[in-house]
Amino acid sequence: MQRFRKILVANRSEIAIRVFRAASELGIATVAIYAEQDKLSLHRFKADEAYPLDPDKGPVAAYLAIDDIVRIALAAGADAVHPGYGLLSESPEFAEACAAAGLCFIGPASQTMRDLGDKVSARRIAVAAGVPVVPASEPLPGDDAAIVRIAETIGYPLMLKASWGGGGRGMRPVRYAADLLPAVHEGRREARAAFGRDEVYLERLIADARHVEVQILGDAHGGLVHLYERDCTIQRRNQKVIERAPAPYLDDSRRAAICEAALRIGRFTRYENAGTVEFLLDRASGDFYFIEVNPRIQVEHTITEAVTGLDIVKAQIRIAGGAQVGRVDDSGIPAQSDIALHGHAIQCRVTTENPENSFIPDYGRITAYRGAFGNGIRIDGGTAYSGAVVTRFYDPLLEKIISWAPSAAEAGARMVRALREYRIRGVATNLGFLENLLVHPAFLAADYNTRFIDSHAAELNGAPRRDRATRLLRYIAEVTVNGHPDVAGRATPAPGPRPSH
Amino acid sequence: MQRFRKILVANRSEIAIRVFRAASELGIATVAIYAEQDKLSLHRFKADEAYPLDPDKGPVAAYLAIDDIVRIALAAGADAVHPGYGLLSESPEFAEACAAAGLCFIGPASQTMRDLGDKVSARRIAVAAGVPVVPASEPLPGDDAAIVRIAETIGYPLMLKASWGGGGRGMRPVRYAADLLPAVHEGRREARAAFGRDEVYLERLIADARHVEVQILGDAHGGLVHLYERDCTIQRRNQKVIERAPAPYLDDSRRAAICEAALRIGRFTRYENAGTVEFLLDRASGDFYFIEVNPRIQVEHTITEAVTGLDIVKAQIRIAGGAQVGRVDDSGIPAQSDIALHGHAIQCRVTTENPENSFIPDYGRITAYRGAFGNGIRIDGGTAYSGAVVTRFYDPLLEKIISWAPSAAEAGARMVRALREYRIRGVATNLGFLENLLVHPAFLAADYNTRFIDSHAAELNGAPRRDRATRLLRYIAEVTVNGHPDVAGRATPAPGPRPSH
Repeated sequence: MQRFRKILVANRSEIAIRVFRAASELGIATVAIYAEQDKLSLHRFKADEAYPLDPDKGPVAAYLAIDDIVRIALAAGADAVHPGYGLLSESPEFAEACAAAGLCFIGPASQTMRDLGDKVSARRIAVAAGVPVVPASEPLPGDDAAIVRIAETIGYPLMLKASWGGGGRGMRPVRYAADLLPAVHEGRREARAAFGRDEVYLERLIADARHVEVQILGDAHGGLVHLYERDCTIQRRNQKVIERAPAPYLDDSRRAAICEAALRIGRFTRYENAGTVEFLLDRASGDFYFIEVNPRIQVEHTITEAVTGLDIVKAQIRIAGGAQVGRVDDSGIPAQSDIALHGHAIQCRVTTENPENSFIPDYGRITAYRGAFGNGIRIDGGTAYSGAVVTRFYDPLLEKIISWAPSAAEAGARMVRALREYRIRGVATNLGFLENLLVHPAFLAADYNTRFIDSHAAELNGAPRRDRATRLLRYIAEVTVNGHPDVAGRATPAPGPRPSH
Repeated sequence: MQRFRKILVANRSEIAIRVFRAASELGIATVAIYAEQDKLSLHRFKADEAYPLDPDKGPVAAYLAIDDIVRIALAAGADAVHPGYGLLSESPEFAEACAAAGLCFIGPASQTMRDLGDKVSARRIAVAAGVPVVPASEPLPGDDAAIVRIAETIGYPLMLKASWGGGGRGMRPVRYAADLLPAVHEGRREARAAFGRDEVYLERLIADARHVEVQILGDAHGGLVHLYERDCTIQRRNQKVIERAPAPYLDDSRRAAICEAALRIGRFTRYENAGTVEFLLDRASGDFYFIEVNPRIQVEHTITEAVTGLDIVKAQIRIAGGAQVGRVDDSGIPAQSDIALHGHAIQCRVTTENPENSFIPDYGRITAYRGAFGNGIRIDGGTAYSGAVVTRFYDPLLEKIISWAPSAAEAGARMVRALREYRIRGVATNLGFLENLLVHPAFLAADYNTRFIDSHAAELNGAPRRDRATRLLRYIAEVTVNGHPDVAGRATPAPGPRPSH
């Protein structure tokens, strides 16, 4: 196994810090990069060295400047680059630029990223690997009778989709056979108007679905294991909000089936490094369907670490250096038969979004910050401390709270306890919203689908968190400046002899 | 099982917060008490309610005022009291006062505390329970030949001790037979002079010893389990500094033997609630000897929680309410056969002691605080945040850092990483000293005894932590006030026309 001397993390905030920690524990030096707008961000100070990116490129584009990042990595003497998640993490061009410069890219092969990055190609791979995908037709023919037969073959409810579309244009649900042909004709007209091409197809509509994903780890020697699944059904506009491991509604045989499906994708693509195979689970039938592969570390990798006791980021680094999975002394990852689930974990994403105002991201200075620690609580934080400034330039993830306990109920109670301990003043957060989610009977019973938040918006947004200190200070300020409302406007008593006490 | 409504914690700082967290997760309300000197301490604000103690009693005595505490508990509507560790935690009088007031005392029966609190009685219990104690003689006879025979029976090296002594007077090590009689005669003289009685006895001297302790949990129904052992050999003046679980030098049969010895003490005393049975382990022979029982939660219970996944404080609360160990739905503690060791854990006690100045406790305002989080790190903190004030009234424990990993080496690397992430300014801390301990080859190899810190003082105190920011500020202040040393005292240039740029 090649042992790296120095790793540059081509990312920011909590995931950069996460990687620095893993590298430090492996005795590897760390390099941060930061945009001008991130010059006070904590990840800059958590690395052994930190270098500024091009201030002229803007807050996000600076982190996407492949040439700049490769130049900094070489100048700093780094021998490996970790891309984190988001930004350049799924860019085959970045992986190839690193390789061309002699830097080890800590992630899958660029060809794997290309194959899986295109959804049509990924779907084709899944089919070839024998993994179920959501049933769909080829582009529909012109013959109405043939369309009716195709629809019956797939089965209702259906979703009509435009082959060359996007943004929902040409899309419409078809729940009953009677609605089929009118929907196809309308959809064709709309698609032609919007995209200039009227090609449409039918896909099975899974209205009542869960989101389940399987963590896999492959090495360069053909070794491949899964680290079981995560349930990420609780989403808001396709953004995961709360994740948990294991998925509480899977029995052993279904768990084994879905993990085996993920391994098939991994084997078929000779997958190297960490990846996540995502599935949609139809609650009605119990069937699951491949969606896509995320060829990188994920925000919610933490809960898998909690229930397996393994360090996925360290494994990424070691595997990139040639280590083998299945050899615990080498990669830290034991053989599949020695990877066991232990207890339950939940992750909440604490964001600076305001649930009372349509989840608009808030920003400004954090005037007071108090976190939550103690037994069974892990915090993976970004720039969250008293005095920290939340800017408007990046996504609003402030901290990840991970709770672990032997049972799902205890992990939930522990998370609620932790959420209630938090005090963050100065910026709005979703802490109260998260707490409402956690204590909702449907969450506790795992009785939810991907539309849970949207369909329970009113309940979940209620009861904003109290900020008694700020309310009191506002009151004092009001009285100081404008006088007490009970006496405002009255004549001031004439000065006289003081009463004696 | 009785479910408590409200628990008062008769303690302060980190252990009070620890208990509040456990209670909150069980849905039980919490009550804090605080001395005047603790009015800004975090435990006051982490409870649902908080009440001041008598300001006239002083910082420590306020927490020892049994009547005051019972009165507050009743007035607040509490139905149970948790004593934490230290303070009143081993006071049978406090336990009885709680019981008399109708409050459940969360701890062992007061009679158990009395039986085990007296070291002579505890030794007698151990012998009766069939648990080895350090070999010792009865009070020595006057006959020199008999003394020689007694010494040979116990075996050298020996420690001569005064029966009625203390503070080391009358004590002397006896390594060889030739030194025996002179030592006895001198020791007798010294004991008579110091205590008025010249009764002395001989005890086996275990010079090269480890400190191993076993966590036990008993219930009111006769149920009793152990949660394996902790190694607490790394001590400074009998204060534990670093603890780890499991003890890395025990093989399975020795581990089973020492845990069984602890259970024997528990069975013999019909032990209820959490307790720790402490042993001295002779490195030379591998034999272990009972020292004492701590009838309360311990500072280092955290590492046992990390390696078993169980919550000892929650178990204390449930057991006090009548729950049975061995029934996981009842007490959270499964049957002995289902309690397994999982990985390795280390705890460091971060204190505000100054290792560069004889470990004198420092105090003042924490001007900057940044902790360490992430995978495998648990923090149990007291009043540690930017702006917090460390007073001189209490023990200098600031935070406990607990690292967990599948292997001992990885847990150690993780702890070093965490220690290096810490930034605490404004008060001295032992962070650098802890780091020096962690990376010492003897620590890594578990090649140490209870005198390790004393015998490696110079190595461990080296390389103080750098505080570059403060050094820079001091330099700027020095130049601002006194002028730059290179130009101090020189004539100020006469004002003239400014050079043009």
